[in-house]
Amino acid sequence: MAKVLEFFFDYSSPYSYLASTRVEAVVRRAGVDLRWCPLLLGALFKESGNTSPASNIVKARYMLKDLLDWTRHYDLPDFMLPEGFPSSSLKAGRLGLVADERGRLSAFTHALYREVFVEGKDVSDVGVLTGVLLKIGLGAEESFERSGSPEIKDLLRKNTDEALARGAFGTPSFFIGDDMYFGNDRLPFVEAALKAA
Amino acid sequence: MAKVLEFFFDYSSPYSYLASTRVEAVVRRAGVDLRWCPLLLGALFKESGNTSPASNIVKARYMLKDLLDWTRHYDLPDFMLPEGFPSSSLKAGRLGLVADERGRLSAFTHALYREVFVEGKDVSDVGVLTGVLLKIGLGAEESFERSGSPEIKDLLRKNTDEALARGAFGTPSFFIGDDMYFGNDRLPFVEAALKAA
Repeated sequence: MAKVLEFFFDYSSPYSYLASTRVEAVVRRAGVDLRWCPLLLGALFKESGNTSPASNIVKARYMLKDLLDWTRHYDLPDFMLPEGFPSSSLKAGRLGLVADERGRLSAFTHALYREVFVEGKDVSDVGVLTGVLLKIGLGAEESFERSGSPEIKDLLRKNTDEALARGAFGTPSFFIGDDMYFGNDRLPFVEAALKAA
Repeated sequence: MAKVLEFFFDYSSPYSYLASTRVEAVVRRAGVDLRWCPLLLGALFKESGNTSPASNIVKARYMLKDLLDWTRHYDLPDFMLPEGFPSSSLKAGRLGLVADERGRLSAFTHALYREVFVEGKDVSDVGVLTGVLLKIGLGAEESFERSGSPEIKDLLRKNTDEALARGAFGTPSFFIGDDMYFGNDRLPFVEAALKAA
Protein backbone atom coordinates (compact mmCIF):
# COMPACT_ATOMS: atom_id res chain seq x y z
CA MET A 1 0.00 0.00 0.00
CA ALA A 2 1.44 3.37 -1.01
CA LYS A 3 1.65 5.62 2.02
CA VAL A 4 1.71 9.35 2.25
CA LEU A 5 2.42 11.87 4.96
CA GLU A 6 0.21 14.95 4.69
CA PHE A 7 1.83 18.12 5.98
CA PHE A 8 -0.55 21.02 6.65
CA PHE A 9 1.32 24.27 7.13
CA ASP A 10 1.01 28.04 6.99
CA TYR A 11 3.51 30.48 5.49
CA SER A 12 3.45 32.77 8.52
CA SER A 13 4.00 29.96 11.06
CA PRO A 14 7.55 29.64 12.45
CA TYR A 15 6.88 26.12 13.73
CA SER A 16 5.73 25.18 10.21
CA TYR A 17 9.03 26.56 8.93
CA LEU A 18 10.94 24.45 11.44
CA ALA A 19 9.05 21.34 10.34
CA SER A 20 9.65 22.18 6.66
CA THR A 21 13.40 21.86 7.24
CA ARG A 22 13.00 18.27 8.45
CA VAL A 23 9.89 16.74 6.95
CA GLU A 24 11.50 15.65 3.67
CA ALA A 25 14.20 13.72 5.53
CA VAL A 26 11.48 12.06 7.62
CA VAL A 27 9.55 10.79 4.59
CA ARG A 28 12.76 9.77 2.83
CA ARG A 29 13.85 7.63 5.78
CA ALA A 30 10.37 6.13 6.05
CA GLY A 31 10.04 5.54 2.31
CA VAL A 32 6.71 7.31 1.91
CA ASP A 33 5.38 10.20 -0.16
CA LEU A 34 4.83 13.73 1.08
CA ARG A 35 1.80 15.92 0.39
CA TRP A 36 2.39 19.63 1.04
CA CYS A 37 -0.85 21.34 2.08
CA PRO A 38 -0.72 25.11 2.61
CA LEU A 39 -3.64 26.53 4.58
CA LEU A 40 -4.72 29.71 6.32
CA LEU A 41 -3.79 29.49 9.99
CA GLY A 42 -5.83 32.56 10.92
CA ALA A 43 -8.99 30.93 9.59
CA LEU A 44 -8.11 27.62 11.23
CA PHE A 45 -7.66 29.34 14.61
CA LYS A 46 -10.98 31.12 14.21
CA GLU A 47 -12.95 28.05 13.11
CA SER A 48 -11.48 25.75 15.77
CA GLY A 49 -11.81 28.30 18.59
CA ASN A 50 -8.06 28.14 19.15
CA THR A 51 -5.87 31.24 19.49
CA SER A 52 -2.31 31.99 18.45
CA PRO A 53 0.28 31.65 21.23
CA ALA A 54 1.51 35.02 19.96
CA SER A 55 -1.74 36.62 21.13
CA ASN A 56 -0.86 36.04 24.81
CA ILE A 57 2.17 38.01 25.98
CA VAL A 58 3.29 35.37 28.51
CA LYS A 59 3.10 32.59 25.93
CA ALA A 60 4.59 34.80 23.20
CA ARG A 61 7.65 35.51 25.34
CA TYR A 62 8.25 31.80 25.84
CA MET A 63 7.54 31.03 22.18
CA LEU A 64 10.46 33.25 21.16
CA LYS A 65 12.76 31.39 23.56
CA ASP A 66 11.39 28.00 22.47
CA LEU A 67 11.97 28.86 18.81
CA LEU A 68 15.59 29.63 19.62
CA ASP A 69 15.88 26.28 21.45
CA TRP A 70 14.57 24.56 18.31
CA THR A 71 16.79 26.45 15.90
CA ARG A 72 19.77 25.44 18.04
CA HIS A 73 18.56 21.82 18.07
CA TYR A 74 18.03 21.87 14.28
CA ASP A 75 21.24 23.82 13.61
CA LEU A 76 19.49 26.80 11.99
CA PRO A 77 21.61 29.61 13.44
CA ASP A 78 20.34 32.23 10.96
CA PHE A 79 16.73 32.00 12.07
CA MET A 80 14.87 35.22 12.75
CA LEU A 81 11.27 36.25 13.28
CA PRO A 82 10.29 38.72 10.58
CA GLU A 83 9.37 42.27 11.48
CA GLY A 84 5.63 42.71 11.80
CA PHE A 85 5.18 39.04 12.72
CA PRO A 86 2.59 37.59 12.45
CA SER A 87 1.62 38.88 9.01
CA SER A 88 -1.11 37.66 6.64
CA SER A 89 -0.27 34.48 4.76
CA LEU A 90 -3.22 34.80 2.37
CA LYS A 91 -1.30 35.84 -0.76
CA ALA A 92 1.50 33.38 0.00
CA GLY A 93 -0.92 30.48 0.46
CA ARG A 94 -2.64 31.18 -2.84
CA LEU A 95 0.67 31.53 -4.68
CA GLY A 96 1.81 28.25 -3.13
CA LEU A 97 -1.16 26.56 -4.77
CA VAL A 98 -0.34 28.24 -8.08
CA ALA A 99 3.19 26.88 -7.72
CA ASP A 100 1.65 23.47 -7.01
CA GLU A 101 -0.13 23.55 -10.39
CA ARG A 102 3.34 23.97 -11.92
CA GLY A 103 4.86 21.18 -9.78
CA ARG A 104 6.87 23.78 -7.80
CA LEU A 105 5.17 23.81 -4.39
CA SER A 106 8.07 22.52 -2.34
CA ALA A 107 10.54 24.81 -4.14
CA PHE A 108 8.24 27.79 -3.57
CA THR A 109 7.82 26.89 0.09
CA HIS A 110 11.52 26.51 0.85
CA ALA A 111 12.37 29.72 -1.02
CA LEU A 112 9.64 31.75 0.69
CA TYR A 113 10.38 30.39 4.17
CA ARG A 114 14.01 31.37 3.65
CA GLU A 115 12.99 34.95 2.84
CA VAL A 116 10.68 35.13 5.85
CA PHE A 117 12.46 33.22 8.61
CA VAL A 118 16.10 33.73 7.59
CA GLU A 119 16.04 37.11 5.84
CA GLY A 120 13.26 38.44 8.07
CA LYS A 121 11.07 39.63 5.21
CA ASP A 122 7.31 40.19 5.42
CA VAL A 123 5.41 37.17 4.06
CA SER A 124 2.59 39.41 2.80
CA ASP A 125 4.91 41.71 0.80
CA VAL A 126 4.32 41.58 -2.96
CA GLY A 127 7.96 42.36 -3.70
CA VAL A 128 9.14 39.47 -1.55
CA LEU A 129 6.65 37.09 -3.16
CA THR A 130 7.65 38.29 -6.64
CA GLY A 131 11.29 37.62 -5.88
CA VAL A 132 10.49 34.09 -4.75
CA LEU A 133 8.44 33.35 -7.88
CA LEU A 134 11.26 34.56 -10.12
CA LYS A 135 13.85 32.62 -8.15
CA ILE A 136 12.03 29.32 -8.72
CA GLY A 137 11.41 30.12 -12.39
CA LEU A 138 7.74 31.10 -12.37
CA GLY A 139 6.41 34.19 -14.08
CA ALA A 140 5.35 36.71 -11.46
CA GLU A 141 2.58 38.48 -13.31
CA GLU A 142 0.77 35.35 -14.49
CA SER A 143 1.22 33.69 -11.08
CA PHE A 144 -0.37 36.62 -9.26
CA GLU A 145 -3.17 36.68 -11.81
CA ARG A 146 -3.81 32.99 -11.41
CA SER A 147 -3.67 33.34 -7.60
CA GLY A 148 -6.76 35.55 -7.76
CA SER A 149 -8.83 32.98 -9.64
CA PRO A 150 -11.85 31.36 -7.96
CA GLU A 151 -10.22 27.92 -8.33
CA ILE A 152 -7.10 28.88 -6.38
CA LYS A 153 -9.05 30.79 -3.72
CA ASP A 154 -11.26 27.73 -3.31
CA LEU A 155 -8.32 25.38 -3.02
CA LEU A 156 -6.78 27.32 -0.13
CA ARG A 157 -10.14 27.42 1.63
CA LYS A 158 -10.56 23.69 1.00
CA ASN A 159 -7.19 22.86 2.53
CA THR A 160 -8.11 24.87 5.63
CA ASP A 161 -11.57 23.31 5.87
CA GLU A 162 -10.14 19.83 5.32
CA ALA A 163 -7.61 20.27 8.13
CA LEU A 164 -10.35 21.52 10.45
CA ALA A 165 -12.69 18.66 9.55
CA ARG A 166 -9.92 16.17 10.27
CA GLY A 167 -9.28 17.60 13.73
CA ALA A 168 -6.59 20.25 13.27
CA PHE A 169 -6.47 23.46 15.30
CA GLY A 170 -3.01 24.79 14.42
CA THR A 171 0.07 24.27 12.27
CA PRO A 172 2.03 22.31 11.49
CA SER A 173 -0.36 19.35 11.55
CA PHE A 174 0.58 15.98 10.12
CA PHE A 175 -1.72 13.19 9.00
CA ILE A 176 -1.05 9.54 8.33
CA GLY A 177 -4.54 8.57 7.25
CA ASP A 178 -6.76 9.49 10.22
CA ASP A 179 -3.81 9.62 12.59
CA MET A 180 -3.08 13.28 13.37
CA TYR A 181 0.01 14.78 14.97
CA PHE A 182 0.16 18.43 15.95
CA GLY A 183 3.37 20.40 16.09
CA ASN A 184 6.91 20.36 14.82
CA ASP A 185 7.83 18.69 18.12
CA ARG A 186 5.80 15.60 17.20
CA LEU A 187 7.92 14.77 14.12
CA PRO A 188 9.67 11.91 15.98
CA PHE A 189 6.23 10.37 16.66
CA VAL A 190 5.33 10.89 12.98
CA GLU A 191 8.46 9.10 11.85
CA ALA A 192 7.93 6.22 14.29
CA ALA A 193 4.33 5.81 13.11
CA LEU A 194 5.36 5.84 9.45
CA LYS A 195 7.97 3.19 10.09
CA ALA A 196 5.67 1.01 12.23
CA ALA A 197 2.82 1.01 9.69
CA MET B 1 28.38 25.15 41.42
CA ALA B 2 25.52 22.99 42.71
CA LYS B 3 22.79 22.85 40.12
CA VAL B 4 19.13 22.15 40.51
CA LEU B 5 16.27 21.45 38.18
CA GLU B 6 13.02 23.00 39.38
CA PHE B 7 9.91 21.06 38.34
CA PHE B 8 6.63 22.99 38.64
CA PHE B 9 3.66 20.66 38.36
CA ASP B 10 -0.02 20.26 39.18
CA TYR B 11 -1.73 17.16 40.54
CA SER B 12 -4.56 17.31 38.00
CA SER B 13 -2.26 17.71 34.98
CA PRO B 14 -1.71 14.57 32.89
CA TYR B 15 1.36 16.05 31.20
CA SER B 16 2.81 16.74 34.66
CA TYR B 17 2.20 13.09 35.48
CA LEU B 18 4.02 12.04 32.32
CA ALA B 19 6.98 14.24 33.25
CA SER B 20 7.00 12.88 36.81
CA THR B 21 7.72 9.41 35.48
CA ARG B 22 10.92 10.64 33.76
CA VAL B 23 12.23 13.67 35.59
CA GLU B 24 14.17 11.77 38.25
CA ALA B 25 16.06 9.81 35.60
CA VAL B 26 16.87 13.09 33.83
CA VAL B 27 18.43 14.68 36.92
CA ARG B 28 20.23 11.44 37.84
CA ARG B 29 21.88 11.27 34.40
CA ALA B 30 22.77 14.96 34.58
CA GLY B 31 24.02 14.76 38.16
CA VAL B 32 21.91 17.60 39.50
CA ASP B 33 19.33 18.03 42.25
CA LEU B 34 15.57 18.14 41.75
CA ARG B 35 13.16 20.57 43.38
CA TRP B 36 9.52 19.43 43.24
CA CYS B 37 7.17 22.46 43.16
CA PRO B 38 3.44 21.73 43.26
CA LEU B 39 1.25 24.63 42.18
CA LEU B 40 -2.35 25.41 41.23
CA LEU B 41 -2.72 25.16 37.48
CA GLY B 42 -6.18 26.74 37.50
CA ALA B 43 -4.79 29.88 39.13
CA LEU B 44 -1.77 29.90 36.82
CA PHE B 45 -4.05 29.72 33.75
CA LYS B 46 -6.17 32.55 35.09
CA GLU B 47 -3.27 34.82 36.02
CA SER B 48 -1.36 34.25 32.78
CA GLY B 49 -4.41 34.58 30.54
CA ASN B 50 -3.85 31.06 29.24
CA THR B 51 -6.59 28.43 28.98
CA SER B 52 -6.59 24.68 29.42
CA PRO B 53 -6.46 22.69 26.18
CA ALA B 54 -9.28 20.68 27.72
CA SER B 55 -11.55 23.73 27.49
CA ASN B 56 -11.58 23.62 23.68
CA ILE B 57 -13.28 20.51 22.27
CA VAL B 58 -11.06 20.34 19.16
CA LYS B 59 -7.89 20.58 21.24
CA ALA B 60 -9.25 18.28 23.95
CA ARG B 61 -9.92 15.55 21.39
CA TYR B 62 -6.34 15.72 20.17
CA MET B 63 -4.97 15.92 23.72
CA LEU B 64 -6.49 12.52 24.50
CA LYS B 65 -4.83 11.05 21.42
CA ASP B 66 -1.54 12.79 22.16
CA LEU B 67 -1.55 11.46 25.74
CA LEU B 68 -1.93 7.94 24.36
CA ASP B 69 0.99 8.59 21.98
CA TRP B 70 3.09 9.64 24.99
CA THR B 71 2.06 6.73 27.20
CA ARG B 72 3.05 4.41 24.35
CA HIS B 73 6.37 6.22 23.97
CA TYR B 74 7.01 6.08 27.74
CA ASP B 75 5.72 2.51 28.09
CA LEU B 76 2.90 3.41 30.49
CA PRO B 77 0.18 1.09 29.14
CA ASP B 78 -2.06 1.44 32.22
CA PHE B 79 -2.58 5.18 31.83
CA MET B 80 -6.11 6.52 32.08
CA LEU B 81 -7.71 9.90 32.43
CA PRO B 82 -9.73 9.98 35.66
CA GLU B 83 -13.48 10.36 35.58
CA GLY B 84 -14.51 13.95 36.08
CA PHE B 85 -11.22 15.22 34.65
CA PRO B 86 -10.15 17.94 35.18
CA SER B 87 -10.86 18.06 38.91
CA SER B 88 -9.60 20.52 41.54
CA SER B 89 -6.02 19.98 42.66
CA LEU B 90 -6.29 22.40 45.60
CA LYS B 91 -6.41 19.81 48.41
CA ALA B 92 -3.76 17.67 46.73
CA GLY B 93 -1.39 20.62 46.27
CA ARG B 94 -1.66 21.60 49.92
CA LEU B 95 -1.17 18.02 51.11
CA GLY B 96 1.87 17.76 48.85
CA LEU B 97 3.41 20.67 50.71
CA VAL B 98 2.56 19.02 54.03
CA ALA B 99 4.31 15.90 52.77
CA ASP B 100 7.25 18.13 51.79
CA GLU B 101 7.59 19.27 55.43
CA ARG B 102 8.00 15.58 56.29
CA GLY B 103 10.49 14.96 53.48
CA ARG B 104 7.89 12.90 51.60
CA LEU B 105 6.92 15.09 48.65
CA SER B 106 8.19 12.84 45.88
CA ALA B 107 6.68 9.76 47.53
CA PHE B 108 3.34 11.55 47.90
CA THR B 109 3.44 12.71 44.30
CA HIS B 110 4.21 9.33 42.78
CA ALA B 111 1.57 7.61 44.94
CA LEU B 112 -1.13 10.19 44.16
CA TYR B 113 -0.39 10.29 40.43
CA ARG B 114 -0.71 6.50 40.40
CA GLU B 115 -4.17 6.72 41.97
CA VAL B 116 -5.27 9.43 39.55
CA PHE B 117 -3.70 8.51 36.21
CA VAL B 118 -3.45 4.72 36.55
CA GLU B 119 -6.41 3.88 38.83
CA GLY B 120 -8.54 6.71 37.43
CA LYS B 121 -9.47 8.15 40.82
CA ASP B 122 -10.59 11.73 41.47
CA VAL B 123 -7.66 13.87 42.65
CA SER B 124 -10.00 15.98 44.81
CA ASP B 125 -11.51 13.00 46.66
CA VAL B 126 -10.71 12.97 50.38
CA GLY B 127 -10.81 9.15 50.53
CA VAL B 128 -8.27 8.90 47.72
CA LEU B 129 -5.99 11.47 49.36
CA THR B 130 -6.32 9.72 52.73
CA GLY B 131 -5.30 6.42 51.17
CA VAL B 132 -2.21 8.03 49.64
CA LEU B 133 -1.18 9.61 52.94
CA LEU B 134 -1.49 6.29 54.75
CA LYS B 135 0.38 4.46 52.00
CA ILE B 136 3.42 6.73 52.39
CA GLY B 137 3.29 6.57 56.19
CA LEU B 138 1.79 9.95 57.05
CA GLY B 139 -1.08 10.41 59.49
CA ALA B 140 -4.19 11.41 57.59
CA GLU B 141 -5.95 13.48 60.21
CA GLU B 142 -2.97 15.62 61.19
CA SER B 143 -1.94 16.04 57.54
CA PHE B 144 -5.36 17.35 56.57
CA GLU B 145 -5.35 19.63 59.58
CA ARG B 146 -1.92 20.99 58.72
CA SER B 147 -2.99 21.41 55.06
CA GLY B 148 -5.57 23.97 56.19
CA SER B 149 -2.98 26.13 57.98
CA PRO B 150 -2.18 29.64 56.69
CA GLU B 151 1.46 28.61 56.16
CA ILE B 152 0.60 25.75 53.83
CA LYS B 153 -2.06 27.73 51.96
CA ASP B 154 0.50 30.50 51.49
CA LEU B 155 3.17 28.12 50.24
CA LEU B 156 0.94 26.77 47.48
CA ARG B 157 0.01 30.28 46.45
CA LYS B 158 3.68 31.26 46.52
CA ASN B 159 4.69 28.41 44.24
CA THR B 160 2.00 29.46 41.77
CA ASP B 161 2.97 33.13 41.96
CA GLU B 162 6.64 32.28 41.62
CA ALA B 163 6.03 30.21 38.49
CA LEU B 164 3.97 33.03 36.98
CA ALA B 165 6.59 35.67 37.85
CA ARG B 166 9.27 33.54 36.20
CA GLY B 167 7.29 33.23 32.96
CA ALA B 168 5.20 30.07 33.32
CA PHE B 169 1.70 29.73 31.87
CA GLY B 170 1.07 26.00 32.27
CA THR B 171 2.45 22.74 33.64
CA PRO B 172 4.80 21.06 33.68
CA SER B 173 7.30 23.91 33.60
CA PHE B 174 10.98 23.37 34.23
CA PHE B 175 13.58 25.91 35.30
CA ILE B 176 17.35 25.80 35.20
CA GLY B 177 17.99 29.17 36.77
CA ASP B 178 16.18 31.65 34.51
CA ASP B 179 16.04 29.18 31.65
CA MET B 180 12.43 27.94 31.34
CA TYR B 181 11.11 24.95 29.45
CA PHE B 182 7.40 24.31 29.08
CA GLY B 183 5.93 20.87 28.64
CA ASN B 184 6.75 17.23 29.17
CA ASP B 185 7.83 17.20 25.51
CA ARG B 186 10.72 19.57 26.30
CA LEU B 187 12.43 17.14 28.72
CA PRO B 188 15.09 16.27 26.10
CA PHE B 189 15.95 19.98 25.86
CA VAL B 190 16.04 20.16 29.67
CA GLU B 191 18.44 17.25 29.85
CA ALA B 192 20.68 18.67 27.12
CA ALA B 193 20.79 22.05 28.89
CA LEU B 194 21.65 20.44 32.23
CA LYS B 195 24.47 18.47 30.65
CA ALA B 196 25.82 21.46 28.68
CA ALA B 197 25.92 23.77 31.70
